Amino acid sequence: MPKAKGRTVAESKTEMLEVVLPNDANSLGNILGGKVMHLIDIAGAIAAHRHSHSLVVTAAVDSLDFVHPIRVGEVILLRSQVTRAFHTSMEVEVRVYREDYITGDRRQTSSAFVTYVAIDSQGQPKPVPPLVPQTADERRRYREALRRRRRRLAEAAQMHRRYFEKQA
Amino acid sequence: MPKAKGRTVAESKTEMLEVVLPNDANSLGNILGGKVMHLIDIAGAIAAHRHSHSLVVTAAVDSLDFVHPIRVGEVILLRSQVTRAFHTSMEVEVRVYREDYITGDRRQTSSAFVTYVAIDSQGQPKPVPPLVPQTADERRRYREALRRRRRRLAEAAQMHRRYFEKQA
Amino acid sequence: MPKAKGRTVAESKTEMLEVVLPNDANSLGNILGGKVMHLIDIAGAIAAHRHSHSLVVTAAVDSLDFVHPIRVGEVILLRSQVTRAFHTSMEVEVRVYREDYITGDRRQTSSAFVTYVAIDSQGQPKPVPPLVPQTADERRRYREALRRRRRRLAEAAQMHRRYFEKQA
Amino acid sequence: MPKAKGRTVAESKTEMLEVVLPNDANSLGNILGGKVMHLIDIAGAIAAHRHSHSLVVTAAVDSLDFVHPIRVGEVILLRSQVTRAFHTSMEVEVRVYREDYITGDRRQTSSAFVTYVAIDSQGQPKPVPPLVPQTADERRRYREALRRRRRRLAEAAQMHRRYFEKQA
Amino acid sequence: MPKAKGRTVAESKTEMLEVVLPNDANSLGNILGGKVMHLIDIAGAIAAHRHSHSLVVTAAVDSLDFVHPIRVGEVILLRSQVTRAFHTSMEVEVRVYREDYITGDRRQTSSAFVTYVAIDSQGQPKPVPPLVPQTADERRRYREALRRRRRRLAEAAQMHRRYFEKQA
Amino acid sequence: MPKAKGRTVAESKTEMLEVVLPNDANSLGNILGGKVMHLIDIAGAIAAHRHSHSLVVTAAVDSLDFVHPIRVGEVILLRSQVTRAFHTSMEVEVRVYREDYITGDRRQTSSAFVTYVAIDSQGQPKPVPPLVPQTADERRRYREALRRRRRRLAEAAQMHRRYFEKQA
Repeated sequence: MPKAKGRTVAESKTEMLEVVLPNDANSLGNILGGKVMHLIDIAGAIAAHRHSHSLVVTAAVDSLDFVHPIRVGEVILLRSQVTRAFHTSMEVEVRVYREDYITGDRRQTSSAFVTYVAIDSQGQPKPVPPLVPQTADERRRYREALRRRRRRLAEAAQMHRRYFEKQA
Repeated sequence: MPKAKGRTVAESKTEMLEVVLPNDANSLGNILGGKVMHLIDIAGAIAAHRHSHSLVVTAAVDSLDFVHPIRVGEVILLRSQVTRAFHTSMEVEVRVYREDYITGDRRQTSSAFVTYVAIDSQGQPKPVPPLVPQTADERRRYREALRRRRRRLAEAAQMHRRYFEKQA
Repeated sequence: MPKAKGRTVAESKTEMLEVVLPNDANSLGNILGGKVMHLIDIAGAIAAHRHSHSLVVTAAVDSLDFVHPIRVGEVILLRSQVTRAFHTSMEVEVRVYREDYITGDRRQTSSAFVTYVAIDSQGQPKPVPPLVPQTADERRRYREALRRRRRRLAEAAQMHRRYFEKQA
Repeated sequence: MPKAKGRTVAESKTEMLEVVLPNDANSLGNILGGKVMHLIDIAGAIAAHRHSHSLVVTAAVDSLDFVHPIRVGEVILLRSQVTRAFHTSMEVEVRVYREDYITGDRRQTSSAFVTYVAIDSQGQPKPVPPLVPQTADERRRYREALRRRRRRLAEAAQMHRRYFEKQA
Repeated sequence: MPKAKGRTVAESKTEMLEVVLPNDANSLGNILGGKVMHLIDIAGAIAAHRHSHSLVVTAAVDSLDFVHPIRVGEVILLRSQVTRAFHTSMEVEVRVYREDYITGDRRQTSSAFVTYVAIDSQGQPKPVPPLVPQTADERRRYREALRRRRRRLAEAAQMHRRYFEKQA
Repeated sequence: MPKAKGRTVAESKTEMLEVVLPNDANSLGNILGGKVMHLIDIAGAIAAHRHSHSLVVTAAVDSLDFVHPIRVGEVILLRSQVTRAFHTSMEVEVRVYREDYITGDRRQTSSAFVTYVAIDSQGQPKPVPPLVPQTADERRRYREALRRRRRRLAEAAQMHRRYFEKQA
């Protein structure tokens, strides 16, 4: 009865906030893409921690766009939720928002799908509880996560072939 | 009709998360008190930003205790909410929790009351909207905030007298 | 005659090194995925700077895998090269290697395609010189870059449709 | 004969300096309150280290005000001294000054009382040597430290009652 | 009457302290040489600030040795004093000590002579007040500073010749 | 036959890049000398790692000048190469360049000779492979390294005498 032992999306939903500091920005005052990626990884990892109750490592990140710049002094808000758990891995969706504290305006600037693997204290992969989607929206993300996983595995296989050819 | 222009507690409630890194800890792996204070100030400032829609500066911090240690690799969770707005200042309550991702256990480790002043782009204090408490709990905090403010002002007056005596 | 004004791949090739420090790693001593992404963005941006002779912002990152962990005390090596320049944007390939200083062993651990847009001092996109591939390998990457760009644009269009539906 | 084994205030007096950097400041160039608190905790901990010859953890911080802003490029100066040692804890007073290097002007901007507990390598509290005040001023601080400690314990007891009520 | 307008050594003497954190150390827990150099430069710059009442830039550092390692959790103490002021530059001596808080033991681990140039808000060199040595020890350092300056200028001239030859 | 087991200069040549961030600079936007020294130490240590295949510690740094300022937003480029290996130590030359990405202009701003000692996992010095210079230029640096080492040892002996006299 995996459902009984599963966890809901709500149990690991995570919200993270940070004020953009001068060192996180280029000379025009816009946040560096690399800083956003760094925060996406942390926000996603905390959701994966909370779902798996274990240490996790980042395995893969899907393509991501940066739509609106976020500026020094603004608040960057990240929301993450596990979309599906596989045997030892979890896909987490992270959405990024900028918040202008003067106008109170909040806009989504990026979104990413990050895959984490749960590991034990020897660094070996360990099984994670299943995710139990409960709303219609959660079930849609759950189904889509499987499609993304299949595409990722196909691409990884292709990538590995290319590496082997190059190095052989 | 200030109430009409006021903002609710919910509008500026803030939740902030961070994973404790090695540099934030002493050699036994416990988070440094100063790091916690730094995060308290940021979490409180974001709530004050959101309430006042302006830049804010920290004016005062009430006494705070560190009850349970938070360890490297654990998640530190901070929740802040404006308890009362005065003419140009706001009192914000920040509660700090440690979250053990292995057991999922969450415990409060500190709580603080921080006062922020809203400032304009010249650094001068500017008025902030009133806070409109809506629940019984919010109304209790609202009343207590006034008591704390009176005690703070009395202590500051006493402190200033001591400074003057010393320097005179 | 754009070729005459174009720049070669070699002119902007970049190599970047960093020693992995405790704060960049999880409690098992493996580098955080987010730190790797941060470095990928910087290494790619420097290649794009060097090609365009202008400030650049990150527009998109393609999916990336983390194949081998990199550990505290090891050297992380990043190599970046522009694969193709479009009107105001450039695709840069960044390859990541771990270097074990005890054995001298070097292995590729990730690779990424990052798109940067050149901007002027007002933050507006500005044209970049064409890239002039010179070797067979550079020409292959140049052709593939166009395919990736088309797929990216198609995905972005699809993503925007989804956003509009959600928000409408 | 505890006095024989005691240490004087002068033995652990500490002076710490730092130049305010852009990342420590808000967008008007004033140091963040949280950064000041962070430095207060470090300056106080070093005095407590020096008195107790052991590792220490922060237990409590008394209320503190921020009177004058300190700006990017200015020097922040912190002076700390143990005011009294109890069984396993010490109260340390930390005074904060801003120093304008152009005019040479120095002003006190904050002051704080921080309580540290000495711990052994298992993280357990361990006894500290008594403090032996030697000047009239040191004796006054020594007496006042006891009063502050009593008020702190009373407040902590009250706080704990409130926590229990809430959680019961 | 330059002496009348001069400043004493005591007026700009500086003491700086820092606790060595994990990120400042190699994997055996010893502070990185580069971190020590960074702190030497800051401690020296503050003394030069205080003497010149102006912004300063680092012009040269004399050879320095690292005699004893400093470890994570220990305190690094830096003491700096201006040894002589020239027209627009100052030589500052910085001595570095490690402090073991368990034993209270303090040992000198490095010492350096750093030359700073005072600059105005356009970045142009500006005159600095003369230094007025007052003790026998200060007068000895004052005389030696001139010898070191002559050797530095001779070496710089030689270095420039070598650069020209290489680049010509 | 040490030459057979030796390593060439090319095997450990290192190139390191970094974008200058606001926190690395003074209020006029020029990089701090201490930051440059920090990077010199890291770039040199990586070359010494690569030559010795072991952990290394910084033992000494020769005098260094800062000729041209490097500004926020510019790229700092460091190139390091082992010039000679002794029994357990290596001399590494590090050259520093600023790169203006707008004009593509690159200029040398500093150069330094840093000595590293290879250590084992107990922190004890351990032998390093000999360096095998191969070009005329490498052989010239190899000969000069011995001269610098002799001067360093003579100066260190003199320094130690001075320390002993002071402390005796």
